[in-house]
Formats: sequence, structure tokens, C-alpha cells
Amino acid sequence: MKEITGGLENVKGYKFSAIQCGIRYTNKIDYSIIVSDTMSNASGVFTTNKICAAPVKICRERINNGIKAILINSTNANACTGDEGYLNTITLTADIAEKLQCSRDNILMASTGIIGRQLPSDKMLSAHDELIDSLTAENGTIIAEAIMTTDTFPKQAAASCVINDQEYCIAGVAKGSGMIAPNMATLLSFIITDAPVDKVFLDDRFKKLIKKTFNAITIDGDMSTNDTAIILSPAADKYYSNESELSDFIKALEYVMNRLAALLIEDGEGATKGVKIYVKGAATDDDASLISRSVSESLLVKTAIFGNDPNWGRIACAAGYSGAEIEEKELSIYLEDKPLFFKGKPTDIDYSSIEDTLKKRNYTITIDIGLGMGESVMFTTDISYDYVKINAQYST
Amino acid sequence: MKEITGGLENVKGYKFSAIQCGIRYTNKIDYSIIVSDTMSNASGVFTTNKICAAPVKICRERINNGIKAILINSTNANACTGDEGYLNTITLTADIAEKLQCSRDNILMASTGIIGRQLPSDKMLSAHDELIDSLTAENGTIIAEAIMTTDTFPKQAAASCVINDQEYCIAGVAKGSGMIAPNMATLLSFIITDAPVDKVFLDDRFKKLIKKTFNAITIDGDMSTNDTAIILSPAADKYYSNESELSDFIKALEYVMNRLAALLIEDGEGATKGVKIYVKGAATDDDASLISRSVSESLLVKTAIFGNDPNWGRIACAAGYSGAEIEEKELSIYLEDKPLFFKGKPTDIDYSSIEDTLKKRNYTITIDIGLGMGESVMFTTDISYDYVKINAQYST
Repeated sequence: MKEITGGLENVKGYKFSAIQCGIRYTNKIDYSIIVSDTMSNASGVFTTNKICAAPVKICRERINNGIKAILINSTNANACTGDEGYLNTITLTADIAEKLQCSRDNILMASTGIIGRQLPSDKMLSAHDELIDSLTAENGTIIAEAIMTTDTFPKQAAASCVINDQEYCIAGVAKGSGMIAPNMATLLSFIITDAPVDKVFLDDRFKKLIKKTFNAITIDGDMSTNDTAIILSPAADKYYSNESELSDFIKALEYVMNRLAALLIEDGEGATKGVKIYVKGAATDDDASLISRSVSESLLVKTAIFGNDPNWGRIACAAGYSGAEIEEKELSIYLEDKPLFFKGKPTDIDYSSIEDTLKKRNYTITIDIGLGMGESVMFTTDISYDYVKINAQYST
Repeated sequence: MKEITGGLENVKGYKFSAIQCGIRYTNKIDYSIIVSDTMSNASGVFTTNKICAAPVKICRERINNGIKAILINSTNANACTGDEGYLNTITLTADIAEKLQCSRDNILMASTGIIGRQLPSDKMLSAHDELIDSLTAENGTIIAEAIMTTDTFPKQAAASCVINDQEYCIAGVAKGSGMIAPNMATLLSFIITDAPVDKVFLDDRFKKLIKKTFNAITIDGDMSTNDTAIILSPAADKYYSNESELSDFIKALEYVMNRLAALLIEDGEGATKGVKIYVKGAATDDDASLISRSVSESLLVKTAIFGNDPNWGRIACAAGYSGAEIEEKELSIYLEDKPLFFKGKPTDIDYSSIEDTLKKRNYTITIDIGLGMGESVMFTTDISYDYVKINAQYST
């Protein structure tokens, strides 16, 4: 596999369009669509929040159909909007379906933004002609821009791969920033490929890779009502389904998803740091996960990271209340390769020797539980003044 | 029962002392002791964190003995300090025991402050004479001051009660501020009474009241290695153990613990708000608890509270990922008595009509799940710029 610059436009067989519809603000590209030349296979991972948005409900109903297009709006989540919100999603996708000459069941939709407001569906319907007329195969980057909410930069990644001597491409976009937490994918991510991959294989691998990539990042521990990650792969006469022939494809897909996850962390709301939490030696992988998540989500750990404060005690503390098996006497904590706490005892490390590391934007904290072979990696950000500022006045 | 002004000095049969020992800082009262005239009965509730401090381990071993004194230091938690930390606690309590002519097993200890540093035990030992020489029955407030870390004011409460026509007194102190979360009591709280209450009865009631008071508050969701709440009741020839004769005592104890919990919320690190989260109509009380905790600990809810932002969508969202049974169509959310979201639909409330409420320091958010009779109350604070500031540079 090979990294490629640019975004969705690298992938053959899709068209893109995005416009300023004025859904909540003027002068914001807020309404976009990805259209597939074929009836693509789709795999999706959605929020596990019991309060989920209307478009998520629709996606769950339609994800196993052939998919012609994904309609996406930002600035309004269409969540907690009752039957009216659900019907709006149906109406909007039905109208797009008519224009694309397919059934509404072939159209997915995703929304992100403020919760609890009805979509201005009339305004959106009347923008559909412009949206369809603007479709182009070249402007993939506009999708990355259109889906942004508090993101400070568009996020896209692309890679090529070889299957049976033939070159294919995978590319994706994502938006996130706040509300990114484990177990619920990112806010929104759309990935497309021109490689025809068997639907069952794609479902399985996409879910596994989500776990390793988007679900391994946490910014504020909150779980959105709208989190949606979808991958499209074209319809074809024959599909690749063989594990070994798809190995380079999987590598490329993992690269794209990892890169998008890294960009999300980079742009965490108000974040000044992106820190890798590596837990090893836990009794089980599940225990390692509990610990990496507990440490990643601890506000006291996050504020210490923000303050360049070598306060490893807070890490031990968060590991201790994670629910995982832990014995203080076996526990060690490292900053990069420097032990701060070793087998239950503080080390006599010279703190001035780690000042430079703590000031870096990215570094690794390793937590060795000393009880078994369980491992887990999670990426976390700090909590800064700006995090509070960005989130204190979002709806008003 | 009747509220009384002042603190521990209201209770007969105890003496208090606190000094500047220089454990971590100069000019900070950091070492204190509460001495009982009798070998008191004690009940205690301690952190459930698997990484717990040496003094917590010692307290767990000794809590069912007759208790002569509680030795308390601030500025150093004596947590993650291995065998040396454990031995330090034994040595310090043994020396105090000798001076008070009892066994070290009659002395409890509590510590709070930075994790992972050894106590300066020699310095502390050499301060023991001064500590014992300064004992007085009058200066109870000094204990409230001595146990403070990032607290901005000392916290104490007292009440009188009547048992069988005889008047008794209950008083307590607490310190907290950061790291206060459900299921682990507060950081430190010491309560004393001159009423001789049966140990089994006291154990039972103290634990139940902890659940209703200290465990119902959350500031940052982190669980300390050192959380300790202890109540002392004097040794006597006869103990009160009858539920009905102790009803006024229980009321007074609940008042004292509630008042201390309210003071802790009031002084939450950097908090500008104290908000009551009242969940009703949940399928079960346990479900109600999951929801009140999830909402209380959501960073996005807390920052919205800080910003006076009526972002009820974040409340619905946090309720949705709590793990409790929830149906969007049955869910309602109120600010005081004003519905923001009713039975799955946003209301057409005029947001300008609730601006004044949102600007208040204290108000109630009611979440009606609409599924059953389960209830839960939790108190939460906002997260402000100052929270980040206070916690960003604590160890250095």
C-alpha cells in the first residue's frame, strides 16, 4: 500500500458536491452529498447511545441495501427531534432518490450539529437541484470541509493498494473534535474505495478496524447521538473476499482510518497535546482496555498533561479505579522509556530530565500492570482553557 | 435536632490540635490530631480505588478496634509509596500511641496531598510532642483548616439532638474540592459525637448516609486513592441501639453530612455553579443512578452549565449513553419547572425566559425518564477555566 495526497477525489466511480444551504448559519458550507456510480455495498458503525439521531435510525434500516448516495448536513444534528425529525430524513432522502433515479432506501443520511432543533427541510429540499447540479468527480476535499462543525481544519486521507496485480484506491474524510470517545466511533467519517470487496468481509473488517482506530481515541468521554462511520465499495460482477488477496487492501484501509483518527486527536477541541496511553501486562486485553480508557478519560490526568505536570500519581489513581485487576506492587509507569514508578515504588528520577518530553505535543505514557499479557493502546488529549471556552457556549 | 454554629469543639469528650510541621510547604498547618477521651467506637468508609494509600490500609485494619485518636496530615497523600510508606504510617501512629498511652492499633491515620512521595517521617516524629502538648477541647475549627489542600475555605458543620430526653451533639469537618466523585465518599471527613451509639447500628447508618450525601456529589469524576470518612462515638457502659430512640440522632447526623457535602460542592475546584440533577421516572433506582451520574459527570454538560447555555441536548445525550433503559419518546427534561424537552419533543419555550435561572449559582435540572418509579439525586458543578488552571500544575 502507498499513501497518496488529497482525499476522496482519488477514488474512481464517485462524485461529490457541497453547498451553502443556510441550515443554521449563512456563509457555511453545510450540505453535501457523495454519489456512487454503482449501487455500492456499504458497511457502517453507529453510536451505541440509546438516544440516537433520526439519520442514524435511517442508516441502520438501510445499511444492507445497495447504496447510491450519502447525504450529509452539518450545523444541525436532527437528534431529539421526534417523529418530525425522522420524517424529515425520509423526505429529504426520498427527494434526492428521485433526482438520482433510485429508491429512497438506497440513500443514507448523516447529520451533525446542535441537538433538538428541526431541520429547515423546505430550504434543504429547494437546494437539492443545486446540490445535484454541482456534482463533480474532482472536488473530494469539499466534503471534508462541508462536514466540519467545531473542527479547525478538514480531515482527509487516501492510500492506494494492490489486489491481484491491480491497483485500487481508498480515501476517507472525518469530522470530530468534541464528543469523541471510545465505543462509539467518531462523530462522522465516510470512506470510499474503488475496490469491489465482498460485503460480509467488509462488514467484519470495518468493525474490527473501527475498534483499533476511531474507538481508540478519546477527547472528552462523551458519546454523541450521531456518531456514524460508513464505508462504500462499488457493485461489481465479482467481489474480492479472499483474506490473502486482500491483505494490502486491509493495510491501506487501516492506514486511512489511523490517519483520520490521528487528525481527529490533533484537532481535539482546544487540545494542545496528543498522548498515547499504552497499557501492557494486564491480566487480560479487556482489563488493559478498562485501564487505558480510565486513564485517557481522567480529567485530572488530562489537566496534568495540559500543565506539563509529571503527576504520575493521577495515572496510578485512574488505573486503580478502572475496575481492572491491579496490584500496586506490580505496577510500573513510564514516560517514554523513563520509569516514574517501578513495581509499586516511586523511582528517583530527576524530574528536570523529563521536562523537555512533557513539553512536547506528542509522547507515550506506558503503564505496565505486571500481571499478564493484556495490552491496549488509546490516544488522549489534554483539557485546556480553550476546551472549556469552545464548549461553554455552543448552542447560544 | 437543631443546627449549631461552629465545629468539632461543640462535642464533649474530644481534644484537638494542629501545627505547621513543614511536611511539604512552610507556613501551612499540615499536621493535626483528634483525640478521644475514651476508646471510641469508629465507623469508616474508604475509597474503592484498588490503588489506595498506606493510611487507608491501616484504617481498614484498625477500624473495628477502640479508637483513641485520628492522626491527619495534609500536603502528602502517602499513596503509591510502597512498603516504606506503609511502615511510615505504622511508625507515626505507634509513636503517637506511646504518647497517648495506648496501642498503635487504637490510632487511625489519614493523609491527603501529592501522590508518590514519602512522608518526611523524622520531621513528623519530632513534631509529635508539640502536637500532643497543644491539645485543647476548644479549638475544633483548626482541624477543618489543617486538612485543607486546594480547598478555599474550611468546612465544618454541627447539630444537637435529643436521645431519651438527653441532649447530645454531632459535629464534622471535611476537605475535598477536586477528586470528589460518587462511590468513594469524599476525600477526607471526620465526624464526632458525644452520643454513645451501638457500633453495629453506627456502621450500618453511616454507610447508608454516605451513599445519600457524600456519594451523591461529583466534581470531576475522579476517585482518589485516599478518600476516608470516619465517625467516632464514645465508649460507654450502655449504648443506644434502638431505631426509634435514635431517630433524632440520625436526623442530626444526616444534617451534618448533607451540610458538609453542600460545602464541598460550593468549593468544587474552580466551580462557579452547584446544580442539582434530579432523575425520576426511571425503570429502577439503579437506572436513575446511572443516569444522574452520567449527566453529572459529562464534560459537555458541565461546560454548558458554566456557559449558562440551555443545551439540554447534551443532557439527553449523556442520559442516552448511561447504560440505563431509556426511550426517547418518553423522555422529558426540565429547568426548574420549565420543560425544555417533553415526551421526546423539543418544547417551544422562549429561551429568554430562562436566562435568569441559568445565570444563578444553584438550580435544579429534572430528567423524567417516563418509564417507572426509579429516582436519584446528584449534585454537580460546572467546569471552568479555573478548574483547568488549578489542576494543570498541582505536583510541580
